[in-house]
Amino acid sequence: MTPAPAASRMTIPKTLLRDFRKLLGEDSVLSEEADLLSYAFDSAVVGQSVPSVVLAPATEGLLGRTVKACYDAGLQITARGAGTNLSGAAVPGAGPSAVILTNRLNRILEVNEADLYAVVEPGVVTADFAKAMEAKGLFYPPDPGSQQVSTLGGNVALNAGGLRGLKYGVTKDYLMGVEFFDWGGELVKSGSRTVKWVTGYNLPGLMLASEGTLGIFSKLILKLVPPPKASVAMLASYPSVGAASQTVAAIIAAHVLPSTLEFLDRKCLQVVEANARIGLPTDAGAILLIETDGGHAEGVKEEAELVRSICLKNGAGSVRVAKDAAERDALWAARRNTLPSLARLRPTTVLEDATVPRSKVPEMVAAVERLAKEHGLEVGTFGHAGDGNLHPTILCDRRDREGFKKVEAMVDGIFTEALALGGTLSGEHGIGIAKAKWLSREENAATIGLSKAIRKALDPRQLFNPGKKVV
Amino acid sequence: MTPAPAASRMTIPKTLLRDFRKLLGEDSVLSEEADLLSYAFDSAVVGQSVPSVVLAPATEGLLGRTVKACYDAGLQITARGAGTNLSGAAVPGAGPSAVILTNRLNRILEVNEADLYAVVEPGVVTADFAKAMEAKGLFYPPDPGSQQVSTLGGNVALNAGGLRGLKYGVTKDYLMGVEFFDWGGELVKSGSRTVKWVTGYNLPGLMLASEGTLGIFSKLILKLVPPPKASVAMLASYPSVGAASQTVAAIIAAHVLPSTLEFLDRKCLQVVEANARIGLPTDAGAILLIETDGGHAEGVKEEAELVRSICLKNGAGSVRVAKDAAERDALWAARRNTLPSLARLRPTTVLEDATVPRSKVPEMVAAVERLAKEHGLEVGTFGHAGDGNLHPTILCDRRDREGFKKVEAMVDGIFTEALALGGTLSGEHGIGIAKAKWLSREENAATIGLSKAIRKALDPRQLFNPGKKVV
Repeated sequence: MTPAPAASRMTIPKTLLRDFRKLLGEDSVLSEEADLLSYAFDSAVVGQSVPSVVLAPATEGLLGRTVKACYDAGLQITARGAGTNLSGAAVPGAGPSAVILTNRLNRILEVNEADLYAVVEPGVVTADFAKAMEAKGLFYPPDPGSQQVSTLGGNVALNAGGLRGLKYGVTKDYLMGVEFFDWGGELVKSGSRTVKWVTGYNLPGLMLASEGTLGIFSKLILKLVPPPKASVAMLASYPSVGAASQTVAAIIAAHVLPSTLEFLDRKCLQVVEANARIGLPTDAGAILLIETDGGHAEGVKEEAELVRSICLKNGAGSVRVAKDAAERDALWAARRNTLPSLARLRPTTVLEDATVPRSKVPEMVAAVERLAKEHGLEVGTFGHAGDGNLHPTILCDRRDREGFKKVEAMVDGIFTEALALGGTLSGEHGIGIAKAKWLSREENAATIGLSKAIRKALDPRQLFNPGKKVV
Repeated sequence: MTPAPAASRMTIPKTLLRDFRKLLGEDSVLSEEADLLSYAFDSAVVGQSVPSVVLAPATEGLLGRTVKACYDAGLQITARGAGTNLSGAAVPGAGPSAVILTNRLNRILEVNEADLYAVVEPGVVTADFAKAMEAKGLFYPPDPGSQQVSTLGGNVALNAGGLRGLKYGVTKDYLMGVEFFDWGGELVKSGSRTVKWVTGYNLPGLMLASEGTLGIFSKLILKLVPPPKASVAMLASYPSVGAASQTVAAIIAAHVLPSTLEFLDRKCLQVVEANARIGLPTDAGAILLIETDGGHAEGVKEEAELVRSICLKNGAGSVRVAKDAAERDALWAARRNTLPSLARLRPTTVLEDATVPRSKVPEMVAAVERLAKEHGLEVGTFGHAGDGNLHPTILCDRRDREGFKKVEAMVDGIFTEALALGGTLSGEHGIGIAKAKWLSREENAATIGLSKAIRKALDPRQLFNPGKKVV
């Protein structure tokens, strides 16, 4: 990825920098151009903006004082976890701006095995958290693609999805409570350690997916579940994308909810196999990677057998069931390797987030193929077919301005199609700056107006992550 | 229940009544004292207030115009489904006020079996909806106690819980989208028919449990799931409440999530048995009613056996497994009959909603017993032990003003205890007017302040259900 040239940086008064250093310590305040450049963009290819300062508070108390100091000074505030966002939600504001890093707030504060919840700071890395829970015999299902580096605070701010959405849901389904600093630097606490909670407004619900525009998280209460006791993974190969995507609907119609139900088209297959060499069927038109799990080995086996037969009935040329954990892990490693493999092919990778009701996956896949042909673009499509959530990935070169216009036209076409099929602008990547301009294509004026009224009430000076989400 | 005398009614101009009749038709506007009295209270015992007018729009369009006409005229607006609320959230405002009935907006607009969702109007009765879904081989799990009459709009406005919370969650876990009329009578639409959705602010999350204080629902998109294929129900009898409540923690610790895990103390047992005569062990100190379910008969049987052994290991004197569907249904009918049975004993029934992390159920049960003794009150406790959600029910007579002070002192004591145990003011009954005054005992000033700012932004004249939730 080669982002466009950075916008020039807005400087802030030296006295303010001195105050930040006094508050946070010398090492926790970055203001050198070279340092600031690293925080000018996130994982999306949608412009960038160099912040005036980067602040790394080490404690909750310092986070609150940092938020207040920035707000009082009129700095635009962008919270940043790992910067893995795919919609530009972590790109700083264009005015005098501060990036507040949450990665030093990375403690797991409580794990309650009896009541099945954990309390964490926002900077805990998703995969680290999942592993720590696994070590205690517990399960935290949300597994966004960037889980090895993404943070839980970022996951909540974007309502991160992942591969297990179909059966286990997304971050939303695991958020029990939040604590965050509001524009006055006050600590707001909402939600509970109890399973049922209806006290006060559902602020965890409002803060979810609000992309840092309403406040800055300091703590999260996350639900845990007992882990499945057995699982079966399989790979079904299809001559065409149509048959593969039809199978998805047939599985749901049979009332089976696999834990994971992933789609890869031929392009993706070929690049992954070229890298991973695990024997993927590179001559197939598409594959499904499916895993079923549950609390009872025999039940899971029977469900897997049912899924296998549905695949075959719906046109799969072959279904390979992973014979052991190593083979299963290789399949999932291959799947997780899809985006990195695609990204190696061309300078720029535009990873899109086309989301439709799952029965519309065949139409959406066909539309992506048609659009790619129409614009003469190289596109690989993979994604969470069971959720109706596809990631058409356009391989291109951003430096080629004329060529990139085609990419933009294709992205536009993808969303026109997704919305026409009853889908949405974003399933899991967020609105950020990438799609803020398109919000009115999905939401009516009253909805956007009311959302702006909320934003204004909670951010009167419009300093929290300006330009993102609802503008 | 004998509510306190109604506050006197505020009249509204005859011209306004004429306008309402012109808009909605003669039969859809109630303004006679006798009619209005029926809408002065809900199922809570927390005061009442006679509305100035009751309006029953028959279509979405008319609902929107009704909301706008009321708001423009400065009438306080309380939406009402079935009036089963247990916190006074459906009690009209004390000023010139309108009750807007949603019960004529009772159509199931769409059931999508492929994508597992339904679109409904707010006045659909919960049990009717669940039955309609069952007839299609689908499952809508939320089952509040009042499900035979409660409406889905009310369920969402209160985030209704029920018996299946432990495994299946509550209304929150099934809400995919909302449409509602805002204070300007504009139709706001938020959420999606897709499994994953992060476009715009999460207004379904904000509206959930907002008790009619932010807008009036016109449509809901609800998630459906495949039904379980097998279930086993059982009744475990215990010599003491302590052993019964300890069992709850032991079951969770074994990583079993029964679909239902209910607790009844001796008082409840005895009154239910006196009514139902199904052979409940009236000499037991307490019982647990447990059901496990799942997609695989053998797996469910094994899980049930594990649960049975945990019950016995934790002091159950006996465990009776229902031998067929009839016996299972009798057990659940008995459970659902608990509140009506208790309600027959004394003129007033104060049904409380004490909610703690589930491992604290033993402490909470003990505290309720201690408080009942301390205040010399007759109390039966039952509830969703698996969710840490108990319903201590105080049998009393509201007309006895001195005696009722003890009831109020006990209720206060219950919440002091619940909060001390890390619990919450309300698990599923709502805040309404009953607990609004206590909100600051759970939420800090910043949280309440921010919540008020949201309310003000979405209801600038403070006409939506005043006095409820956040005041």
